[in-house]
Amino acid sequence: MPTHTQLHQEIFQQPQVIQNLLDNERQPIQRLAAAIQEGKIEHVIIAARGSSDNAARYAQYLMGSMNGIVVTLATPSLFTIYRQPPRFGNALVIGISQSGKSPDIVAVLEEARRQGVVTAAITNVPDSELAQQADHIISLSAGDERSVAATKTYTAELTAIAMLANALNGDPSRQKELQQIPRAVARTLEMETIVEQVAPRYRYMRECVVIGRGYNYATAFEIAIKLKELTYTIVESYSSADFLHGPLAIIEHGFPAITIAPSGMVLPEMRAFIGTLKELKAEVAVISDDEETLRLGEVALPLPHSVPEWLSPITTIIPGQLLAMHLAFIRHYDPDQPRRLSKVTETY
Amino acid sequence: MPTHTQLHQEIFQQPQVIQNLLDNERQPIQRLAAAIQEGKIEHVIIAARGSSDNAARYAQYLMGSMNGIVVTLATPSLFTIYRQPPRFGNALVIGISQSGKSPDIVAVLEEARRQGVVTAAITNVPDSELAQQADHIISLSAGDERSVAATKTYTAELTAIAMLANALNGDPSRQKELQQIPRAVARTLEMETIVEQVAPRYRYMRECVVIGRGYNYATAFEIAIKLKELTYTIVESYSSADFLHGPLAIIEHGFPAITIAPSGMVLPEMRAFIGTLKELKAEVAVISDDEETLRLGEVALPLPHSVPEWLSPITTIIPGQLLAMHLAFIRHYDPDQPRRLSKVTETY
Repeated sequence: MPTHTQLHQEIFQQPQVIQNLLDNERQPIQRLAAAIQEGKIEHVIIAARGSSDNAARYAQYLMGSMNGIVVTLATPSLFTIYRQPPRFGNALVIGISQSGKSPDIVAVLEEARRQGVVTAAITNVPDSELAQQADHIISLSAGDERSVAATKTYTAELTAIAMLANALNGDPSRQKELQQIPRAVARTLEMETIVEQVAPRYRYMRECVVIGRGYNYATAFEIAIKLKELTYTIVESYSSADFLHGPLAIIEHGFPAITIAPSGMVLPEMRAFIGTLKELKAEVAVISDDEETLRLGEVALPLPHSVPEWLSPITTIIPGQLLAMHLAFIRHYDPDQPRRLSKVTETY
Repeated sequence: MPTHTQLHQEIFQQPQVIQNLLDNERQPIQRLAAAIQEGKIEHVIIAARGSSDNAARYAQYLMGSMNGIVVTLATPSLFTIYRQPPRFGNALVIGISQSGKSPDIVAVLEEARRQGVVTAAITNVPDSELAQQADHIISLSAGDERSVAATKTYTAELTAIAMLANALNGDPSRQKELQQIPRAVARTLEMETIVEQVAPRYRYMRECVVIGRGYNYATAFEIAIKLKELTYTIVESYSSADFLHGPLAIIEHGFPAITIAPSGMVLPEMRAFIGTLKELKAEVAVISDDEETLRLGEVALPLPHSVPEWLSPITTIIPGQLLAMHLAFIRHYDPDQPRRLSKVTETY
């Protein structure tokens, strides 16, 4: 049973991990927010890989819309291979890494220090090499993550980013919304029963696409990476807009598409996009808290708890994590130790 | 025969289009470079979709390494859906679009104007809506592109970016290197004979990955989009570093991987990566001008003409264009009019 795996335990630790973060990391995050404001920093550069890079995508949209800050994803090869790093100007440079160990990510922060800009690390290992290069350390305090596929550290990274955006924003009503997230995640985990029923449908799926936009562009990438790591399915992730500029051509009768469509500003666009997919006779799965949108899908993955759109990626990823885990189980793959991969990947 | 298609004609027009650009667009590009220098601009934001977005990726690495400028890919949904655009500060905002028509890309430039920052358009339609929002217009002058799959406008966009990077840099030896590109592209087109021989091998390929890094990260994405649009193959593109952080798990015996490995700083990393793929018994195709590297591949796609690494994406894409076209032909698909797609895609 999947319940005996590390992965299952770690997925179900998420409400507690997020609660810890909300309780214990407010001060370092406030200090980072103050440094951004005092330094009049209007540009953030984030270096990250894998799931942490997906958390960086969330930061790009959230800090862009809530804080008016342009967020750039770093290009590590300029630092490690070409050795011609760009000038950071008055940017804040953040490294996000569960292990804090990947040399290319550390190299970006090292260069930032050399240039004298403010640096921060979001990591589960607060004495890691990455953290040693950071003026500000945000510790995920998620406990050991032993399963290779990141789950609790991913939602912890999203939460840390939401806390930072809100600290910059100082909106007490949003603070309240944040406080309700552990409970929302706990309720969303109740989806396991539904996901378990649905998973066998995908037993022989060789490939699929996952589509989200805006805040949930990150979720599309993260669901894709979970399905790849755990079930070895070929998965492409897109924003609904990018998908129309070319990739739409691959859709055939019955082609599986997973769409992320929680309530909010992006919902009308996602509904229209689901309509386009259905015209092409794709088989659409819908992750949503909206009844009418769920009815559009051949497969409905109903989110049991509605959250404000800016926080929705912290809950919308849950059915993706559960689906990847159960599908791995059905396919007799080891959910804790995917083939080829190790927990810490060191790239240059 | 593919020679009767618009696509074939447009692919073979590339040397002439690039020559025109080099001859006719130096002045507007010089003026844009002067505006960047006089405005002490150290940050560029680019809005683009599809192939133009891949050209933007090239700009990210090239202007980063050659000009020390951080280049950010814009997040159009912040402008069109959330209506909470970030502050551009002292950035230059560039829109890249063949048609100059996609409303989300136009919206980013409109907002940039509203914020009073310098704007530029790189487009094949110099009186398009996009161009109307731009202080600086770089006209691709590629002639009508009638095939839905962009080819000559893509390499023209790359060339325009290389010209801009070099105008900022002012290095006469690099100027010479640029001048040799039309001939290098013409010689690279001679690969058609080899590609035509190789293409049938992929007749029944359902999915593959394309891997490049640094300057040729863009090429990986662009080869992927050509294969998707023209041959309806499921293609994922990655940097060699990102691929190791999770997606590596999907590789099985015989899994097809196309690698882009021209001579230069990235070559040792790509060679090591090809070694990893071979250990997993993937079937590797290699695009390279390096004899030894070509020998590592099950399929060799030898570039007949070596070019400096910074310009290599203008030639490395050619075998990808030719392969996608010939594979479409073998599969009896219309290379000029891929299913579902139209030449101008308007997204919001």
